[in-house]
Order: sequence, then structure tokens, then C-alpha cells
Amino acid sequence: MISTDVCIIGAGPVGLFAVFEAGLLKMRCHLVFALPQVGGQLTEIYPKKPIYDIPGYPEVLAEDLITNLEKQIEPFSPTYTLGERVEEVHKQDDGSFKLITSDQSEIHCKVVVIAGGLGSFEPRKPEIERRDEFEKKGIDYMVKDPEKYRDKRVVIAGGGDSALDWVIFLADVAKEVSQVHRREGVRGAPDSVSKMMGLVEAGKVKLYVNAQLAGVNGNGHLEKVTVKMKEDQVDIDTDYLIPLFGLSPKLGPIGEWRLNIDKRAVAVNTDDYSTNIPGIYAIGDINTYTNKLKLILCGFHEAALMAHSALKFVFPVKKHVALKYTTVSGVQGFENS
Amino acid sequence: MISTDVCIIGAGPVGLFAVFEAGLLKMRCHLVFALPQVGGQLTEIYPKKPIYDIPGYPEVLAEDLITNLEKQIEPFSPTYTLGERVEEVHKQDDGSFKLITSDQSEIHCKVVVIAGGLGSFEPRKPEIERRDEFEKKGIDYMVKDPEKYRDKRVVIAGGGDSALDWVIFLADVAKEVSQVHRREGVRGAPDSVSKMMGLVEAGKVKLYVNAQLAGVNGNGHLEKVTVKMKEDQVDIDTDYLIPLFGLSPKLGPIGEWRLNIDKRAVAVNTDDYSTNIPGIYAIGDINTYTNKLKLILCGFHEAALMAHSALKFVFPVKKHVALKYTTVSGVQGFENS
Repeated sequence: MISTDVCIIGAGPVGLFAVFEAGLLKMRCHLVFALPQVGGQLTEIYPKKPIYDIPGYPEVLAEDLITNLEKQIEPFSPTYTLGERVEEVHKQDDGSFKLITSDQSEIHCKVVVIAGGLGSFEPRKPEIERRDEFEKKGIDYMVKDPEKYRDKRVVIAGGGDSALDWVIFLADVAKEVSQVHRREGVRGAPDSVSKMMGLVEAGKVKLYVNAQLAGVNGNGHLEKVTVKMKEDQVDIDTDYLIPLFGLSPKLGPIGEWRLNIDKRAVAVNTDDYSTNIPGIYAIGDINTYTNKLKLILCGFHEAALMAHSALKFVFPVKKHVALKYTTVSGVQGFENS
Repeated sequence: MISTDVCIIGAGPVGLFAVFEAGLLKMRCHLVFALPQVGGQLTEIYPKKPIYDIPGYPEVLAEDLITNLEKQIEPFSPTYTLGERVEEVHKQDDGSFKLITSDQSEIHCKVVVIAGGLGSFEPRKPEIERRDEFEKKGIDYMVKDPEKYRDKRVVIAGGGDSALDWVIFLADVAKEVSQVHRREGVRGAPDSVSKMMGLVEAGKVKLYVNAQLAGVNGNGHLEKVTVKMKEDQVDIDTDYLIPLFGLSPKLGPIGEWRLNIDKRAVAVNTDDYSTNIPGIYAIGDINTYTNKLKLILCGFHEAALMAHSALKFVFPVKKHVALKYTTVSGVQGFENS
């Protein structure tokens, strides 16, 4: 069981910087993040992309910004639970919180700061009957281990890069590969498209265009996928269906915590970026308010105001803490971590 | 006459970054600043001090932050009027503004952004009768050229470092130097204090302690300073009185523009950091709102929200401009400046 002053959910740039602002006010922080490394979208989605709108940086690589933020918060010795998602938040009788993660880790804290970015990225799913029945029993939304499909029959749905890449790759692994695409033409890198068309001509891939997933069937495990085309409909015998329709950001379990939600974001009071539940704050891309801009620099400001407000939950006796300027005093971290 | 979309008053870090946020939305900016160089307090007061609370910079020298911000806004080719103070702001019939500076420069713009930091720094003045009558006629609040006092009689009032430094320096220049200090002991670097005491013992400086300025006298030019001590009062014949009581931030002429002022700061709406006058915004240390923190990083956020709101005054026809992420599109500046 982990005990801390402030538990920050999310470890993107804004979650990381919240450690700095809290640390200046002598509050200890623990970060919980669903991914195995810190940085959020910046390290997960675009580590090598330059960012141009961090004030004071004419240009900085996303991963370098994260490295710098990690260095900036080092004096405050934050602790981490990585690779786990916070599933439950329980308010205790004394006003503190107990958080439970996907791996059943327990975290006790006085303040919860949701800095979850766009939320967790979840696969877009096809709207077909009996879909949920066959999830993990023939329907997979991502390819974790291609060997699973060796000598099996596979239907891949989707026409983007990811679908194309796996069609090409699995053509050599699976016994049969069919691709189902709702349009006439596939999108994707020209090289991939021509490779795929070669496989179709060679009879190694069967391509269905202007085709929609219409149903799934089976007995305990997936056996058949029904595909509807312009004029007719076919049943494809298969062992697996892999819909690759892209990822969509979802709030995830946060949506269940009785927070006020507005358009898939957490509604906050801009006086201090507090939510409707005292002691829970939301900062960065995951919150919403009048004129909200989803910019990293806005999250930094939100982290600062949040920290000054959170102080009252962590040190309820202290009446007033003066704002200290780091130009005068430098940064004093914690001696022991 | 200068014509621009947005006129930014102040060229500290927040004023500079406002050019970036406005520029991303295709609004041109002109900056007016009372000091002869950009950077505000950072270059004027503490250029060589490291700052620790700029997000993403574990440590950065104040002057380097300014250099980086100047580089970051280069693509948007801002223009400058330096060394002039905006004295008057007139709202025109068409909703635009005409600004007039201390040197009578005229600036026409659609939006005014006050990013004046703590305001202009003005000398603290002694509360004595007939003071204003002798300003520039014997009373100086700063030493611009020490040669002015050669072979003259000078009274320096104050007991801080600045007073001490000038007492020591002018002891070799002026005919007579008196120091008037309201306390028993002087504050200041030990080395300066012992130097000054040496000059007093050598009869080169006359020191009055527990002494207050009580009056000034003269005929067209200062001739006499009256000093009140615990039990008696003396008249000192002199050519100059130099009160060195420190600098105090003042709002300056901004206080006269019919803006809502709260505790010497401009009250703003946190939805967009607008003032009570449509088209005038205030960002950075000069504004105030619930839970305001005077941090540079907060000013950056305020600049971003301000720019998106200001758009409606600059391009009233456009209905909507989508937020663009610089990670996707990079920074597109103006082709001609």
C-alpha cells in the first residue's frame, strides 16, 4: 500500500510538471500511469516530432521535453506506479482517498489530480450483433503476437496502414487471409498498397471492397463472419476476425467516478481546476471549461493553480503559504525520498 | 503613425510570447515598451539569475529565456517602439484604438494587450511640502550623471545600498556631502558601511541619523533642506537633494484608462483575460483575478486564451478558426514584415 500527499493519475508533461508545483509547496507526489513509461502522448505517439509552442523553446523534440521535465522534478523525488490503470477511487471518511489500480495496487492520498490527457486510447469497434460474445474468442482488436495466427484463417477488417501492414505480414503466416474494406480503394502507403495487390493477384489474400462487416457467428468460438457488399452478402469461414479501425481516446474508468463530465472531459472550476468532488482536480487535456485550449502550456498553468489550492487538503492547519519565487530561493526538494 | 492588429504594451516574457500566440492565428503585433530593450524585469533587474520554474527548463538564465522567446517569435516579425511609454489610449468610433506614447508616437490597432508586468518602476518620494516645486530644480530621484554634482553641495537621503554607494562615490566629487537617514543604523553591505564611516570620521561626509526630511526651501532652485531629528531640527544649505528611497512599481498612466483596477492591478475575466473595455486585454503580472499567481508560466497561458478571444476583433467576419497544433503543421510566420 502506497501512501502520499498527492496522487497524480497520468504522467504526461502536465502530470509531471504538477510534481514540481506541488513540490515547491512541500507536497509529495505519486504518479500512476497506464503505460509502462512516462511522457504520455509525447513519448507514445510522437517522440521524434518537434514541438514549437512550448514557451521559451523555439523548437524541442517531444521526448526531450519529457526528459527535461523529469530532470526538473527530480529534486522532489516523485514515486511511480507504471503500467497500471486506476480503476476505482474511494473517498474515505476522513476526506482522504483510496485508489485501486488494474493490478489491485492500493494508493492512499489526500488529493487526487487527474492529468490523464485524452484518456486511454481504445480500439474502435464494429457495430455488429454478438460482437462482445466473441471478444477474445476469435475477435482481436490488436495483433499482440502474430504467431497466434499461424496456419489459421484470418479476416482483417479495415483499409488503413495498420490493416494493410498486417494483411501483408500475416499472408506468410496464416493459412488464409481475407481483407474486408468498406470503400472501393484502400488508403495507405503506395508501396504497401502495391504489395497487397500483388498478394491478391497471387491468390494469397482475398480482398472484399465496398464491404461491411454485418455479423459474426460461432459456437463458443468465432467460426464465421458475414460481409455485406453492394448487392450481395457472403459468409467467410474463419478462425479470427481482426477489426483494425484505429484507436479512439476514451475517458475509461474516470467516467464512473461521479465527476461532472462534459463532452468526454472533466468539467472544472477555473479558479483552481477543481472538480465537483472536493480534493479531486483535473488538469491538462482531460479537463474542460469555457474557452479551453488543449495546449501543454495551458496545463502547466492549471498545475500551478491546482497546487496552491490543493495545499488546504494536505496541510489543513497552515493558514497561508506565501508564493515563493525560484529566482530568489532556488528549488528546495525533499531530503529523503 | 503605426498600424497593426494587436498592440502589446510591455515586452517582458509574457508580452513577447503573446506575439507567438497571436501570430499562430495570423494577427500582426506591435510592441511598445518604456525601457530601451525587451525582456522586462528579466533583463532589467536580474539578467544573470537562474530561473527554475519555467516548465521544461530545470534551470535557465533570465536573459537566455528572453533570447529564446525572441527567437521563437521571429517568424511572426513583430515590430517595436522601445523607450516610449504609452500615455493615452483612445477608443475610436469604429471600435479600434489610437495609442499615444510619451514621445507622441501614434499607434492604431484593433486590440490592446496590456502586458506591463509590475508596471513602471517609479522612485519613492519623500512626503514633504513644496517637493514638486523643486523637482528637477535641485531634487533628483536618481543619479544619471555624477559630474552634475561636481563641486556642489549634496544631501543624500536614505540608508540603503544605493544611498551608501552614492555617498561614497560623491564624497570625491561634490564639495559637501550630507547623508540623512531616518534610523540609527544604516543597512547595506558591511564593506560599504565601514567605508562610509571612514568618510564621516575624516570629515568628508556629514551623517545625520534618526533624522527625517522635514522641508525644502529656495527661490526658483533648491537652497535649503530642513531635517528633523529626535530632539532638534537643522537646516542644511545645499544645492541638491537626492532622496534614494528605492523604486516602487506603479501602474502609471494605465490607471487613468477607465479600466477596473483592483489592488494596483487590472481586473480581468479569466474566460479570456479581457478587461472591462472590449478589445483591451491584460495578461501577466499586471492583471488580477481569483487565485492569481504572479508566475511567468501563468502569463503564457493567459496569452494563449487572450489570442483566441482577440481574434473576433481582428477578423470579425471569420466565424471559426480551428486550433492548430504546431506538432502537425509547424509554425507558419508572415512572409512579409
